Amino acid sequence: MTTMPHWLSKQAFLQPEYPAVDFPDGSCITFAELEERCKRKAAALSFHGVKEKDHIAILSSNRVAFIESVFALSYLGARAVLLNTRLTIRELDYQIHDGDVKAIIYEAAQEEKVEALTAGDVSPLPFHTLTGDYTMPEMKERIDLEDVFTLMYTSGTTGAPKAVLHTYGNHWHSAVSSALNLGMERRDKWILNLPMFHVSGFSTLMKGVIYGMTIEHHARFDAQEVVESIKHRGATMVSGVSVMLEELVEVFDRDDIPGSFRCFLLGGGPATEKLLNRAASLGIPVFQTYGMTETTSQIATLAPADATRKLGSAGKALATASLHINAAEGEIGEILVAGPMVSGGYYKRDREEGLLFATGDMGYFDGEGFLYLSGRKKEMIISGGENIYPAEIENVLVQVPGVSGAAVTGMKDEKWGEVPAAFLTGKDIKRDEILQYCERHLARYKHPAYVYRVAELPRNASNKVLKYKLTEMVKAGECDEIE
Amino acid sequence: MTTMPHWLSKQAFLQPEYPAVDFPDGSCITFAELEERCKRKAAALSFHGVKEKDHIAILSSNRVAFIESVFALSYLGARAVLLNTRLTIRELDYQIHDGDVKAIIYEAAQEEKVEALTAGDVSPLPFHTLTGDYTMPEMKERIDLEDVFTLMYTSGTTGAPKAVLHTYGNHWHSAVSSALNLGMERRDKWILNLPMFHVSGFSTLMKGVIYGMTIEHHARFDAQEVVESIKHRGATMVSGVSVMLEELVEVFDRDDIPGSFRCFLLGGGPATEKLLNRAASLGIPVFQTYGMTETTSQIATLAPADATRKLGSAGKALATASLHINAAEGEIGEILVAGPMVSGGYYKRDREEGLLFATGDMGYFDGEGFLYLSGRKKEMIISGGENIYPAEIENVLVQVPGVSGAAVTGMKDEKWGEVPAAFLTGKDIKRDEILQYCERHLARYKHPAYVYRVAELPRNASNKVLKYKLTEMVKAGECDEIE
Repeated sequence: MTTMPHWLSKQAFLQPEYPAVDFPDGSCITFAELEERCKRKAAALSFHGVKEKDHIAILSSNRVAFIESVFALSYLGARAVLLNTRLTIRELDYQIHDGDVKAIIYEAAQEEKVEALTAGDVSPLPFHTLTGDYTMPEMKERIDLEDVFTLMYTSGTTGAPKAVLHTYGNHWHSAVSSALNLGMERRDKWILNLPMFHVSGFSTLMKGVIYGMTIEHHARFDAQEVVESIKHRGATMVSGVSVMLEELVEVFDRDDIPGSFRCFLLGGGPATEKLLNRAASLGIPVFQTYGMTETTSQIATLAPADATRKLGSAGKALATASLHINAAEGEIGEILVAGPMVSGGYYKRDREEGLLFATGDMGYFDGEGFLYLSGRKKEMIISGGENIYPAEIENVLVQVPGVSGAAVTGMKDEKWGEVPAAFLTGKDIKRDEILQYCERHLARYKHPAYVYRVAELPRNASNKVLKYKLTEMVKAGECDEIE
Repeated sequence: MTTMPHWLSKQAFLQPEYPAVDFPDGSCITFAELEERCKRKAAALSFHGVKEKDHIAILSSNRVAFIESVFALSYLGARAVLLNTRLTIRELDYQIHDGDVKAIIYEAAQEEKVEALTAGDVSPLPFHTLTGDYTMPEMKERIDLEDVFTLMYTSGTTGAPKAVLHTYGNHWHSAVSSALNLGMERRDKWILNLPMFHVSGFSTLMKGVIYGMTIEHHARFDAQEVVESIKHRGATMVSGVSVMLEELVEVFDRDDIPGSFRCFLLGGGPATEKLLNRAASLGIPVFQTYGMTETTSQIATLAPADATRKLGSAGKALATASLHINAAEGEIGEILVAGPMVSGGYYKRDREEGLLFATGDMGYFDGEGFLYLSGRKKEMIISGGENIYPAEIENVLVQVPGVSGAAVTGMKDEKWGEVPAAFLTGKDIKRDEILQYCERHLARYKHPAYVYRVAELPRNASNKVLKYKLTEMVKAGECDEIE
């Protein structure tokens, strides 16, 4: 059993007047104020019957009340079930039922949805009912790293959603391992603009209280706002996915990048070489990273120093983590991971035996041990007995003039079993040019059998492309083949 | 059970060509080279019969072979018993016997002592027998934080020496907690010139492999060498005790301090206000720290930002640690500590129950929770029912013109039980001036009943003043009372 003082209370003691949360308008909440607010919210939650080990859902976009609720629950020893605000009522009902949720804390914008929920006896706790003065209950002043802190449903690009259990230790080791990788400087300030109901945003919140670092709270990603924060409000780090980096590149292209901006932590799947080259030429310090909900975000990272030499790689495992490939040396296989940030399992599902967690992602190591991702195991296309990884084809397609985005998935085929189909966004795309590019860069069996133009690629709240929706779109006749 | 890849192997993988150990002559050993050397030494130790869980002593001053031996033992899962090179044969015999030591690794300079040991069947393994090519045995590639790594005997200023058990987790959390406090910058380089057989030097070695940071290896403390490293070889941090800071102040007084020098981590007991003021005026970034072998070094630290406002304080507990005072609020009491860097106990001694470790140090908190040390519990003088803390008197005495060092201890007295006796080093010290200072600054019962002049204060290898030796010196007639 490893215990330590509650992270937020500790920072409130160590640096009471230091900003815990900054806002774009220049206002801030100090660590002492944040502790006070969270404890008052804990008192309100306690008054409404929340007890130790209860599962309490939070359904909210990024806002201070979300942050307060998270730590209020931790002061009571309750567990936070983080719900995606984009979920349908049916999906919410499933997760609330599956997660044994006793009460749901939510923002006003979610009221209609919450009222429509059919899952039995869940107490509704809109944010506005959690203000006011209540008797302070007994608070947890120490954290036990083995206690469960959060449940997050995996984004569900495939299969039924399962709740990933994260202990305090998973969050602690994630934050510490990230710091050992990225360094920790006194005046660091991390922009939090990814959803906190995902591990991507939530892990930034954890870093804030564990490092005693200011986070700058943005309600959502806004490239112009990010640039303002970096240029004028001292932000040094930001996390994002490739579509965000695309937008940032556009803005920074017309602007200067200050030296204090030391990290764009790029997650959410591999970025294209085209984008990485463009970011590198602008001097944006991109750290490509690999991670998922089950690894409590970042588990492998490529430093900018290696970015050119190892373009497209996700780097090496963090100091406390290990990566393995379930295949012969140099071959593509499933990525297995281990480390103290890796979740011990899913709620109410059997725990897998053994040290290694099978990610469902495919990849390989180069001669120096750098990881390259080849896509999802389930997304792998088997065509005439050959394994085809969509990411490889996608990387070629985005090089074609006019193509701004590309996704590849398998389509059933009588002769080959499956064949690759490409879905492209962009302007003035010519089928001939695409086929010429493929001819030069890809073995014949990897050439897309179908090339569709789409207005937009369907993505989930983490900006991951939903491949199964592409197939649905074809069936529904929503895509045109490119001439 | 929390496990992670072996720290040294991990750094050898992450940054094979990065310097692990730099030397004043400009040479260096990379992380890949260090791993190779340590594994070869592990092979030699395995050939000589060293096995998992064996207790193997190291008796050596700072040198590369010491570092290699430490990690060689860890690759075999053996435990390192770190012996002080200043120990007498009788003391070594005691620790080797008490620590169940099976073999002793040592430097040539210790040969005579090792040959004179009477403790039964201990295999002598001088460094020169541990070179050459041996078959590589099975190596531990993962670290379990709960496994014991080192045994260090407490310096023994009072009582019989006991071996403090440190797990890998104690060392890990010590390094991580220190980083959360001091920050971690990419180009940090820490000078290791304190003895590695003490936790002070050993913890710097641990930081090196855990952070992936270069350490600059000095055989011993040399103020001029430290300044050279800071000015010309990029050293950013150094640990030391107050007598070292005194010397550094002398050298820096005639020289410039580069901005890259960001931390003098000052441990080993409270420094005088006079010294701290002088260091502050020169711009030396002194972080006063409190810690001991049982806390795996640093557990509380005062940042330079608070140094003037809180002069003489040891600051606040690190992020993962807690401090308590066993007394009413604001009163002096024994300091109790908790945290994942605190040793679980002593070898072959009953483990204390409960979360808190009683340090034997006395101290108090000010209104903002900053810790002030008042001396050792056992050093407290009880005079006519009043508790007197030597540190308070010492702090006054060093302000007297001519006084360079001061130590106060209790002497038996028929009337009062005990009375304070002062031992001073310095030139042209006048008894009158001393008494005038005491009159102004100290309650009458705290005035020294005896004031002795000594050529030098007796110190142990950690530079702590050995108070019991002062009493012995008086008995032996080796001190003169100041007129």
